Amino acid sequence: MIESYEFSKKNTFNLRHKLILLNHCLLFNFITAIIVIVYAISLAVKTHMTGTDSLWFFDIFEHIVISYFVIEICLKIYAEKEVCNFFHDKWNVFDFIIVLISVVPFNSFEYIAIARILRVFRILNVISHNDNIKKLLIALEGAIPSVLNIILLMSIVFYVYAILGCNLFGSLESGLWVNFSVSMLTLFRILTFEDWTDVMYEAMEIYPYAWIYFISFIIINGFVIFNLFIAVIVSETSKIQDSDISYMLDNEGASSPLTHQELSIIKDMIKNIK
Amino acid sequence: MIESYEFSKKNTFNLRHKLILLNHCLLFNFITAIIVIVYAISLAVKTHMTGTDSLWFFDIFEHIVISYFVIEICLKIYAEKEVCNFFHDKWNVFDFIIVLISVVPFNSFEYIAIARILRVFRILNVISHNDNIKKLLIALEGAIPSVLNIILLMSIVFYVYAILGCNLFGSLESGLWVNFSVSMLTLFRILTFEDWTDVMYEAMEIYPYAWIYFISFIIINGFVIFNLFIAVIVSETSKIQDSDISYMLDNEGASSPLTHQELSIIKDMIKNIK
Amino acid sequence: MIESYEFSKKNTFNLRHKLILLNHCLLFNFITAIIVIVYAISLAVKTHMTGTDSLWFFDIFEHIVISYFVIEICLKIYAEKEVCNFFHDKWNVFDFIIVLISVVPFNSFEYIAIARILRVFRILNVISHNDNIKKLLIALEGAIPSVLNIILLMSIVFYVYAILGCNLFGSLESGLWVNFSVSMLTLFRILTFEDWTDVMYEAMEIYPYAWIYFISFIIINGFVIFNLFIAVIVSETSKIQDSDISYMLDNEGASSPLTHQELSIIKDMIKNIK
Amino acid sequence: MIESYEFSKKNTFNLRHKLILLNHCLLFNFITAIIVIVYAISLAVKTHMTGTDSLWFFDIFEHIVISYFVIEICLKIYAEKEVCNFFHDKWNVFDFIIVLISVVPFNSFEYIAIARILRVFRILNVISHNDNIKKLLIALEGAIPSVLNIILLMSIVFYVYAILGCNLFGSLESGLWVNFSVSMLTLFRILTFEDWTDVMYEAMEIYPYAWIYFISFIIINGFVIFNLFIAVIVSETSKIQDSDISYMLDNEGASSPLTHQELSIIKDMIKNIK
Repeated sequence: MIESYEFSKKNTFNLRHKLILLNHCLLFNFITAIIVIVYAISLAVKTHMTGTDSLWFFDIFEHIVISYFVIEICLKIYAEKEVCNFFHDKWNVFDFIIVLISVVPFNSFEYIAIARILRVFRILNVISHNDNIKKLLIALEGAIPSVLNIILLMSIVFYVYAILGCNLFGSLESGLWVNFSVSMLTLFRILTFEDWTDVMYEAMEIYPYAWIYFISFIIINGFVIFNLFIAVIVSETSKIQDSDISYMLDNEGASSPLTHQELSIIKDMIKNIK
Repeated sequence: MIESYEFSKKNTFNLRHKLILLNHCLLFNFITAIIVIVYAISLAVKTHMTGTDSLWFFDIFEHIVISYFVIEICLKIYAEKEVCNFFHDKWNVFDFIIVLISVVPFNSFEYIAIARILRVFRILNVISHNDNIKKLLIALEGAIPSVLNIILLMSIVFYVYAILGCNLFGSLESGLWVNFSVSMLTLFRILTFEDWTDVMYEAMEIYPYAWIYFISFIIINGFVIFNLFIAVIVSETSKIQDSDISYMLDNEGASSPLTHQELSIIKDMIKNIK
Repeated sequence: MIESYEFSKKNTFNLRHKLILLNHCLLFNFITAIIVIVYAISLAVKTHMTGTDSLWFFDIFEHIVISYFVIEICLKIYAEKEVCNFFHDKWNVFDFIIVLISVVPFNSFEYIAIARILRVFRILNVISHNDNIKKLLIALEGAIPSVLNIILLMSIVFYVYAILGCNLFGSLESGLWVNFSVSMLTLFRILTFEDWTDVMYEAMEIYPYAWIYFISFIIINGFVIFNLFIAVIVSETSKIQDSDISYMLDNEGASSPLTHQELSIIKDMIKNIK
Repeated sequence: MIESYEFSKKNTFNLRHKLILLNHCLLFNFITAIIVIVYAISLAVKTHMTGTDSLWFFDIFEHIVISYFVIEICLKIYAEKEVCNFFHDKWNVFDFIIVLISVVPFNSFEYIAIARILRVFRILNVISHNDNIKKLLIALEGAIPSVLNIILLMSIVFYVYAILGCNLFGSLESGLWVNFSVSMLTLFRILTFEDWTDVMYEAMEIYPYAWIYFISFIIINGFVIFNLFIAVIVSETSKIQDSDISYMLDNEGASSPLTHQELSIIKDMIKNIK
């Protein structure tokens, strides 16, 4: 059945064969990597050249890069027999969104800041072309359920302390506790131990027992829950390293999604070339 | 025997049946969660609206929330055959105390600060309605014996350094070592590495060898004992993750404490509905 | 043979029996703990009472405590058949040194600071009376060989950076790099991330590439070697927790060194009381 | 065959025998260690003696140390049958480079700073003479592949935030975001939590929502990726500790690369001495 199908749509299929080969070709991925890295360097170099006239060069280069990405993703979509197959792999979806954001024309003056921000996200394309980073992100993915629980517990502690903080210290001159949002920011600052004593000493001038509030927050959130965070990531990582070989096999399958049919097509083509 | 008991007290028992069902009903827990979250948001929004006249709305909403919690806990207590059964589950005790604190009328002017503080603890109700957070807290509970030992050792080191600190540096101008309590606070600050060099440089002007005191404290408490803290939490967490499946079964049993008898009653009721 | 020996030295031996019982008596250890804690509290309270006349009370209490410790250690030594047996247990040696330091008369005016410092070490007596803390210290003891290697590697990195630092930045105004000792202190400060950017920005004014020195030091010592430190303590702790039961048995043997002979003596005495 | 070869080149071979023995002699390594430590101390002492006339002593001592290292490495190379064997062990290559750098004459005035820097690297010689440090470095070597992936992921996040940072905050007065390089340095500073709130509060004056930029960077890089760093080192270390015995055997083989032939030669020589 497959043979008859191949026979009937031979012409378009041959092109598709070549594209499948192209997508799995090391040279093709290498060129994409080089283009992304050169584009990344160009963005960095550009920040060092404010006030010079050579910025038009970067604009032209940017258009070339966007064009390349659009062509690449079109080829990839066309290489699939059905369009929806392309979107089954979430890395492809990620690529597609990055490219889609790239081509949106943010040239009107007021949206220039947003345009600048979005430009840099094109670099994230590199993630979907690098298997090692994919592997790390999958590792982090496994820790998400545990991490979410910790974040939930942390959020409740944060919330309670923020509400307490703005009710107790809302009238302080520094304005670090004027409302809930500012209190949350101040508590995040205390969590990183950044000049937290300045905040405490100010509060202790009015409430001499304010240290209970600060010390308890640091012990609960900074010591206990934060270390729980480390603990969960450590135990997730050791799990992943235990199952590293079985994972490698799975991942290999994901990064080179050649079905047996595709493999046989490629083998045939190689034979024909010979 | 159970049948005859059921038969004799059929009317009240049918109500109790419905209440048991209600307590285990997802919708009921969902409504409670929504109310707690809305109340939490209202408390946060309130801090952003100082000086406006719409605060009466929040007061009314607060009374509704308190009423809801009181009714909920009364239903839960009534649903149990005997009142003391309700207090066997420590999460119920936790709920009960939170609600009890909520209804205490702190309306006199001087206790207004305390009233504000207590108001936020109503939010903690969410913990006893969330199985994931319960699970995390049980995980932390296992680490308590080891953590207590570390805290004991840490306290002794803290104590010795605090006594040394106020005897040695008590006369310094900054007043960071005037007595034992202030010295403890200063040492806690040094433990978090927060501007500890300012404290050290001041002390070194009088005692040039004061760095021995500070460096040794940081190495003993900040590096060794604090890392022991991380180590204990890591090894506890990995233990829990190993026994996760067996735990899940236990926890499920705890969160839905339906005895076989209760289950059969529910099954009968479902049959009757059909 | 043992019986004949007991028979011949019956009078002194009966006293010794009572002392062995006393040393292993919970009440005796409880009284010692209470005295140490009360003494610790008295030292802390004393720092809050500068300028008042009631300090003579603390002096008298201190003499009582020292006397108690001296009597306790004398009884313990006498309870052993041979004096050298007492010193076989390193916790006894630790106790003995603490008591020895306590009784040294530092009453001359110029050594008053040293006397104050030594006074607090009496508190460390509590460590040798607390099995949990002993256990933690033994846990740390196992990590010592690995930790020493890390400290050696860290020292070499510290040394190289300190020599480089005072050769490169020795002429800076802040005086943070004037010689080797001061450079070591500055590097320790950078290791704790305490205002390290101030140090770096000052150095970058003369050597614009000074950031290489600081960033490399932080990555090597602060990130890699410091995390190795955590890693070693984590793996040591998990080892200890694995062998916790076997350890417990060993430890119990160490904290109550009752030989079978001693046990039989105690059993006999209990029978006699009955 | 070996015997005939030995017989023909007996004279030079006997010298080589003695050198092999010398290289594996504990006394020889001990003398080298002493010289390196004394040299290290002399470099440290020198920094404390600016302005005095006794610096000529240090110069003479330095020449002696360099001479010793050159002679040592020459003997080691000569002791090998073939020169390339010497370079098969990477620790020998490390030694050779250190000595090579030492003898380069940087006496011209303008390169005096570089000369000073290179001088200290002679101390690194101690690493190749210490088996424990070698062991630690080998332990770290195993973590390199995982660590490189984390650094790659961290770099991408750093890059994206640096480009965003200088596009958004490039016009701020503090000049912390003027171009890509400076932004990278500022982000590294934020990663270590060093006065990051000062940077944020400045940015929030222009963009009130700048906190999203800072908080997200700290959570992604400071919390998640940095803890992944700890996790990888922890799991690597526990792997190494598991295979410690098998490693010890390997390492012993590496530090004393005596072939069976060499061992038999040594045994023969010992017999001859007897």
